[in-house]
Amino acid sequence: MQKITILIHCKDQKGIIAAVTNYILKIAGNITYIDQHVDHEQNVFFMRLECELTNVKNTLETIKPDFGQTIAADFGMQWEMYNQEQKPKMALFVSKYDHCLFDILGRYSAEELNVEIPLIISNHNDLRTVAERFDIPFHYVPFTQETKEEGERLQLELLERYQINFIVLARYMQIITPTIINKFTNKIINIHHSFLPAFQGAKPYHAAFKRGVKIIGATSHYVTEELDEGPIIEQDITRVSHIHSVEDFIMKGRDLERIVLARAIKLHAQRKTMVYSNKTVVFS
Amino acid sequence: MQKITILIHCKDQKGIIAAVTNYILKIAGNITYIDQHVDHEQNVFFMRLECELTNVKNTLETIKPDFGQTIAADFGMQWEMYNQEQKPKMALFVSKYDHCLFDILGRYSAEELNVEIPLIISNHNDLRTVAERFDIPFHYVPFTQETKEEGERLQLELLERYQINFIVLARYMQIITPTIINKFTNKIINIHHSFLPAFQGAKPYHAAFKRGVKIIGATSHYVTEELDEGPIIEQDITRVSHIHSVEDFIMKGRDLERIVLARAIKLHAQRKTMVYSNKTVVFS
Amino acid sequence: MQKITILIHCKDQKGIIAAVTNYILKIAGNITYIDQHVDHEQNVFFMRLECELTNVKNTLETIKPDFGQTIAADFGMQWEMYNQEQKPKMALFVSKYDHCLFDILGRYSAEELNVEIPLIISNHNDLRTVAERFDIPFHYVPFTQETKEEGERLQLELLERYQINFIVLARYMQIITPTIINKFTNKIINIHHSFLPAFQGAKPYHAAFKRGVKIIGATSHYVTEELDEGPIIEQDITRVSHIHSVEDFIMKGRDLERIVLARAIKLHAQRKTMVYSNKTVVFS
Amino acid sequence: MQKITILIHCKDQKGIIAAVTNYILKIAGNITYIDQHVDHEQNVFFMRLECELTNVKNTLETIKPDFGQTIAADFGMQWEMYNQEQKPKMALFVSKYDHCLFDILGRYSAEELNVEIPLIISNHNDLRTVAERFDIPFHYVPFTQETKEEGERLQLELLERYQINFIVLARYMQIITPTIINKFTNKIINIHHSFLPAFQGAKPYHAAFKRGVKIIGATSHYVTEELDEGPIIEQDITRVSHIHSVEDFIMKGRDLERIVLARAIKLHAQRKTMVYSNKTVVFS
Repeated sequence: MQKITILIHCKDQKGIIAAVTNYILKIAGNITYIDQHVDHEQNVFFMRLECELTNVKNTLETIKPDFGQTIAADFGMQWEMYNQEQKPKMALFVSKYDHCLFDILGRYSAEELNVEIPLIISNHNDLRTVAERFDIPFHYVPFTQETKEEGERLQLELLERYQINFIVLARYMQIITPTIINKFTNKIINIHHSFLPAFQGAKPYHAAFKRGVKIIGATSHYVTEELDEGPIIEQDITRVSHIHSVEDFIMKGRDLERIVLARAIKLHAQRKTMVYSNKTVVFS
Repeated sequence: MQKITILIHCKDQKGIIAAVTNYILKIAGNITYIDQHVDHEQNVFFMRLECELTNVKNTLETIKPDFGQTIAADFGMQWEMYNQEQKPKMALFVSKYDHCLFDILGRYSAEELNVEIPLIISNHNDLRTVAERFDIPFHYVPFTQETKEEGERLQLELLERYQINFIVLARYMQIITPTIINKFTNKIINIHHSFLPAFQGAKPYHAAFKRGVKIIGATSHYVTEELDEGPIIEQDITRVSHIHSVEDFIMKGRDLERIVLARAIKLHAQRKTMVYSNKTVVFS
Repeated sequence: MQKITILIHCKDQKGIIAAVTNYILKIAGNITYIDQHVDHEQNVFFMRLECELTNVKNTLETIKPDFGQTIAADFGMQWEMYNQEQKPKMALFVSKYDHCLFDILGRYSAEELNVEIPLIISNHNDLRTVAERFDIPFHYVPFTQETKEEGERLQLELLERYQINFIVLARYMQIITPTIINKFTNKIINIHHSFLPAFQGAKPYHAAFKRGVKIIGATSHYVTEELDEGPIIEQDITRVSHIHSVEDFIMKGRDLERIVLARAIKLHAQRKTMVYSNKTVVFS
Repeated sequence: MQKITILIHCKDQKGIIAAVTNYILKIAGNITYIDQHVDHEQNVFFMRLECELTNVKNTLETIKPDFGQTIAADFGMQWEMYNQEQKPKMALFVSKYDHCLFDILGRYSAEELNVEIPLIISNHNDLRTVAERFDIPFHYVPFTQETKEEGERLQLELLERYQINFIVLARYMQIITPTIINKFTNKIINIHHSFLPAFQGAKPYHAAFKRGVKIIGATSHYVTEELDEGPIIEQDITRVSHIHSVEDFIMKGRDLERIVLARAIKLHAQRKTMVYSNKTVVFS
């Protein structure tokens, strides 16, 4: 028995839910989860559905073309269908900060994440030992401003070789260029150490301290060409007060960064996110 | 054009969503909200649906019997159907504490609550002036342990006279007896000033202080015959520390009580709650 | 027996705490609360102290000059000393939004706020009935862009006549001009309906919705000449998701605005805030 | 220049702060942090102070007897004095759950914790590989109900051999017996996977699920002979709803357990906690 996940979005119309659920009935599917959302402003319908295919004759492979030519075509849907057993392959990009890396690899080892991590890519060698502790191949791809293009070529080669599905920037301190962004649209997750859109850019904890805020935050988002402007996946915050120094902000922020990035990875890996209009629909 | 809300629960079976959404299509309804939940442990299906009846021939009155004899009968559903324009009538029971009362009446005056409040009932006269400030009829129904039955009879008479749909105990310090509970099953909302099930019964802030907790809470729940054991609707918490006295706990708790009770009222008034197995399903 | 509160700030130096606590000992004061903070970056010392004067010969009036000429002079302190029994007088400025006004007046009536509210000033007549319900004098001071100066003159006259100590802008939709700000420096509290510095200016909920944030906030701050740039007193947040419309943001935000403004009023009224470098020290 | 931390508690009396701060002045100490708390109910005074000894002639070793014989004796203080450079030695007790262990060792490697971890003790061999990844000696001390006493003897031997200062039970599923508790009074930190005092004992997530709570929590506390009744150090919570299964509770709880345990370790390691009357004073 196969378990599949379907993600759909299309123009909102009458009868979509009836059509989709009728279809699942027809193929002897057992719906175990269904959720939908309508963006009434933009008139767009979103749906996420999980089902068990109880008839062995029906598999992802046989249903896919059938669903595409019937339901999906009728409603003009954009859609994806996944075998739940197939874990997405995730590449980790890191520089020198180790706290998010330790957290992700700890969760990975504790089997909390529905992913495979075939490789870590870094522009510095500092975190090689961490990767080795967890037996993950570590690829050192250094570059300068001048050789950035060449570095990027090497990165893309690695991503292709390992058949990477999505990328996580675990406090990777470099700007990702359009070449990679375009190949991995809505598939690169970054963690920004502020409550976006407050304190975009560099040194957000210093800026937050200077402004005297009483709450700091962290934001995970998909990377787009506009720096720190991509669709937000998850945010969280923690209280600070006058007694805390910038160093305290940074230390408290590490916990936020860890947790907010880990949640985004889980959501993406379980195919619970959809992007539209530079925003995310995040199914529960 | 009428707007209606439908609440359904029944044994989980294949085809429920398809059947219901097909039905809405048939009557020319436009689904503006749909959410469902399956309790896989108990095998129960829950659904909440909002739709606009675009064909003027279809109204709540005509659809109700039709839906009941067809879909609802087929699946063995328990269900309710509401006209969204009809605000539920809410009775407020109070004693001497005024903070929740002020909050509710302030929100009511600011048109935040989808209810009518035809009366306030109290076993003390203290809060009469508050009721008068907001022009709500105030009924003083005093009783002693000996005359509690008589008091209850008067309360029931008032509830009936004003055609009350649900009751809110806004820090009403009396125990509601089975006679009233049975007439208003899952229709009496209480606010308990602790994070249930911790600190049931009297003086929860004192108990929390004694235990040295770092977080205090408040819980709104439907009243059942077991004291503080009814289905939880909403909870929230706030941080405390060694610097806070019992009086500080009480003062901080007032804000929790206000907000947690207000949220429960809103959810109930918008027919977003369903009760099953002494728990609530709370639709978003 | 008098209870007094002392607020001090000065250049950080050795021996301040010893000197102040020795002084309190000398005048037979019983310290019931003491807290201090050092801003190591700017080298500034802050202290808040509460004490009971157990010797009836010592009162606020006799101690004040003595403390000023000895301890305060020695260390170059800026300081204030308050009789705790003297509640500060607070003016409320409102326009058309009533939710913060209802909340504040409800708390005031429930005796939660350590203030007197001698008057409400508004540029619209809409909320007069709310003021009347709570028996607070309501002063209608309308003005246009052309007559703003005249309006301001009338406002200042009222503030003086009622001996107002501080002003609360309860969703007052007008910009306060430097004339009033300079007379009430760090004594005008505003509530901004966003998590500052994100979404400054008008329509922050709309901007937050457009950006697709997962958390919205509210910020209470002292008013300075730079719009939304004054020292932050308190902030809080609540979660939102793709299912929430702008209207949901606004409704959820009302609860934030109420609570964040109420907390700021309490802190200010209890003389727990000090302003320095466009930031606040908020004592617990 | 030495940096020291002093913790004091004694009966509340006039003049303590003056005496202590005068003493620090006398020995040419520069106070960089001072905080105090009075439990007015029990009439107990608590103080935590950090200072730099600017005169090289004064060190922890010379001051300790002096302070003890003068100030501490005068006021009947219980007190401790620490060299801030000396990191406490922490033993980790684990069983089979790895998520807290990964988190702690990740933080330790990232140099977030002010501790040394000379050893891990476990009654199972499952987590040996995790310990080895981080190069921490792993001691397998198995026992049955019959051989528990012998196991405990071995544990104590190890704790002594490694000069352990405090113990952290990172989801160690065994009950600690009085012998060890008495040797490490207020020096054994446990993480309980509920919002204590709710859901004491085994399977708290299952109990929380059954009760239908809307919030789950985790609690770190010092271990006493009463199970789950020791002084609470830190608590935190997360929201759940009807859509979450017991497995979801457990998974969400892992993040709570990690963070709440890590915070307790940090607080203890920085000597910010004091225990009194089965409660903690937790300095900021």
